Amino acid sequence: MENQRLIELMDEVRKRKPLLHVITNRVAINDSANGALAVGASPIMAEAHEEVAEIAAISGALELNIGNLTPYSIESMRLSGRAANKAGVPIVLDPVGAGATDFRLQTVQKLLEELDVAIIRGNAGEIAALAGEKWAAKGVDAGDGNGDVTEMANRVALSWNTVVAVSGAVDTITDGRRTYHVKNGHPLFPYMTGSGCLNGVIQAAYAAVTSNALEASFAASTIYALAGQLAGEKCAGPGSFRQHLMDELYLMNEEKIQRYAAVEDVTGL
Amino acid sequence: MENQRLIELMDEVRKRKPLLHVITNRVAINDSANGALAVGASPIMAEAHEEVAEIAAISGALELNIGNLTPYSIESMRLSGRAANKAGVPIVLDPVGAGATDFRLQTVQKLLEELDVAIIRGNAGEIAALAGEKWAAKGVDAGDGNGDVTEMANRVALSWNTVVAVSGAVDTITDGRRTYHVKNGHPLFPYMTGSGCLNGVIQAAYAAVTSNALEASFAASTIYALAGQLAGEKCAGPGSFRQHLMDELYLMNEEKIQRYAAVEDVTGL
Amino acid sequence: MENQRLIELMDEVRKRKPLLHVITNRVAINDSANGALAVGASPIMAEAHEEVAEIAAISGALELNIGNLTPYSIESMRLSGRAANKAGVPIVLDPVGAGATDFRLQTVQKLLEELDVAIIRGNAGEIAALAGEKWAAKGVDAGDGNGDVTEMANRVALSWNTVVAVSGAVDTITDGRRTYHVKNGHPLFPYMTGSGCLNGVIQAAYAAVTSNALEASFAASTIYALAGQLAGEKCAGPGSFRQHLMDELYLMNEEKIQRYAAVEDVTGL
Repeated sequence: MENQRLIELMDEVRKRKPLLHVITNRVAINDSANGALAVGASPIMAEAHEEVAEIAAISGALELNIGNLTPYSIESMRLSGRAANKAGVPIVLDPVGAGATDFRLQTVQKLLEELDVAIIRGNAGEIAALAGEKWAAKGVDAGDGNGDVTEMANRVALSWNTVVAVSGAVDTITDGRRTYHVKNGHPLFPYMTGSGCLNGVIQAAYAAVTSNALEASFAASTIYALAGQLAGEKCAGPGSFRQHLMDELYLMNEEKIQRYAAVEDVTGL
Repeated sequence: MENQRLIELMDEVRKRKPLLHVITNRVAINDSANGALAVGASPIMAEAHEEVAEIAAISGALELNIGNLTPYSIESMRLSGRAANKAGVPIVLDPVGAGATDFRLQTVQKLLEELDVAIIRGNAGEIAALAGEKWAAKGVDAGDGNGDVTEMANRVALSWNTVVAVSGAVDTITDGRRTYHVKNGHPLFPYMTGSGCLNGVIQAAYAAVTSNALEASFAASTIYALAGQLAGEKCAGPGSFRQHLMDELYLMNEEKIQRYAAVEDVTGL
Repeated sequence: MENQRLIELMDEVRKRKPLLHVITNRVAINDSANGALAVGASPIMAEAHEEVAEIAAISGALELNIGNLTPYSIESMRLSGRAANKAGVPIVLDPVGAGATDFRLQTVQKLLEELDVAIIRGNAGEIAALAGEKWAAKGVDAGDGNGDVTEMANRVALSWNTVVAVSGAVDTITDGRRTYHVKNGHPLFPYMTGSGCLNGVIQAAYAAVTSNALEASFAASTIYALAGQLAGEKCAGPGSFRQHLMDELYLMNEEKIQRYAAVEDVTGL
């Protein structure tokens, strides 16, 4: 994918200011809303059963994050998800901690069976869980494993007919046929709680402005990783990293993308 | 209203450190507590039915924000609101997203029917919904509309016998008879999620130290907008804006108010 | 306790990256997770009944914070607490607002009766409530009182056979026999909402790497207070204090500890 297309999508989000319906966990909810605003979207974090279907149906995209599941929030996700599918609104699913407990993995699998999901965004441990691979996930953190991340991501993408974005030192984005790597990023990302969750919301912002989920995910992943890289160069530690990350998402521009985006089409490699 | 009175109220909040009982949404809850502390108040964000009436009755003010409604939190608001009214504790109501869904608008109207509210604080889209005006609200964001904001605010204030504070590029504060404009502020405010919600909590901090809700709302609106203006001049983007906003609320002083407060009595204009 | 041991424990947390299971309030949850990451731990903020026992049993420590009680979260605490006790995982309990309402005090007492708690961390008002002393607590803030904090802390420690850490201008850490004071800190701590809650999570991070709860609590208290002191020297107000605090937790090192740690063994004084 050309940098030029990525820049067009960035501008498109800022111009259209898509409404994003986000159901997410209590840890990441504030940063997720701020990050969505920073790239130009308009987030609404609604969970009440009385209104989620109504909101999902008029949104540009719906983001479902399973970081703090309750029976209530699972039902919120099902109600909003079905309304989104019916209205043609793309869904991004973030399977937080799917490798940590059976309960989370089963919930994700049920959501995937019931809903048509455009993009799944997770870390290696979460995608490994969805691929049925053994992986030493550590709670909600990625942990370590020996599996081939690209191969696992391709498999999950084909199984569920979706795009898979795996965050890590190198991000992998694939629809199971075409695969990209994004090499931007920063080692402080894992020190910011909910930085993966925010990535999922950025994916939703881009999915709202193009019907091509693969290019949406590629653009979101690149812009987010690059903002983090630039933030990391300016900060003193994880506290200031977060603040600079929000600033850099807001300040992202054509010149920075042309100059620093480090992406690669690795299809078939 | 004179700057001198505004300064007296600022000092009064810092001296009395009023206990604020705040029931608010999960997105804004952390910033709301930090902002309340920054102006000198002592917030408690309690929602348990077993304790809300007890806490509301001993608080300086109660703030009710409908950003994340659940059946449980609606009941928390009713229980605390009735206890506040009985004890003469002023209530500030923030009708977040009242223009977004019927469920929210109905909940706000029921609260207004049941409780005696001192100040309603919202954006133009939310106040338009309460005034029964058409308005292109966008989720929880203000959106655009052609209605006359001052006229709508006056109408809502008179209907519910309350003060109405409308946040925007220019803030409007009115009790339906006397009306002020606050022209301080900064374009980054809408990029900070929950910045309107925090405004509501600041209104409560000032309502706790004077029985004149109009002057409380005017003082809170001016100090908050001015802190944002000063923060905006120092920051690089929305991430650093938030941090500077908290600093500026804490650092607000007589000199800055005398020098920069840009307010106007527009009664009858 | 020697600075050398404190440094060893700091390194041990960074090396082992213990999984921390944290059940806490909505206000402090984001800062608590970020602070845990900043000292090198791996937090998971899980509350679902289906998974809390499973997670607690494999964690390095469990932290229970009663800041936002609901019937659901109380049951989460009981389920995770019993699993932690069974698996020998240390529990840190933060009795937020125990002096504010009867409901909170009773909940804390029930948890203490049912669970074996390694460390109780609170402010003076909360520890006074547990000690049955009169104290002018103000909501969740410490308030003022005339009781002898060290004596109260000793009494609570002996009653429940636990370590008690009392945060304040000077921190007191005791198991009822041996008592330490930590004199590091900064006046901006009370202006950061959830700064006490984060202290509790840091206690858990250290409790995960030593079976000696007294030294864990001493090390956590010292490092946290010192990070705040260094942050306070760099910041302009409470907004920037928070950011610098996270940075300083991450940047803490042997040299700073050797140079600035201001601790005292006050046993029997």
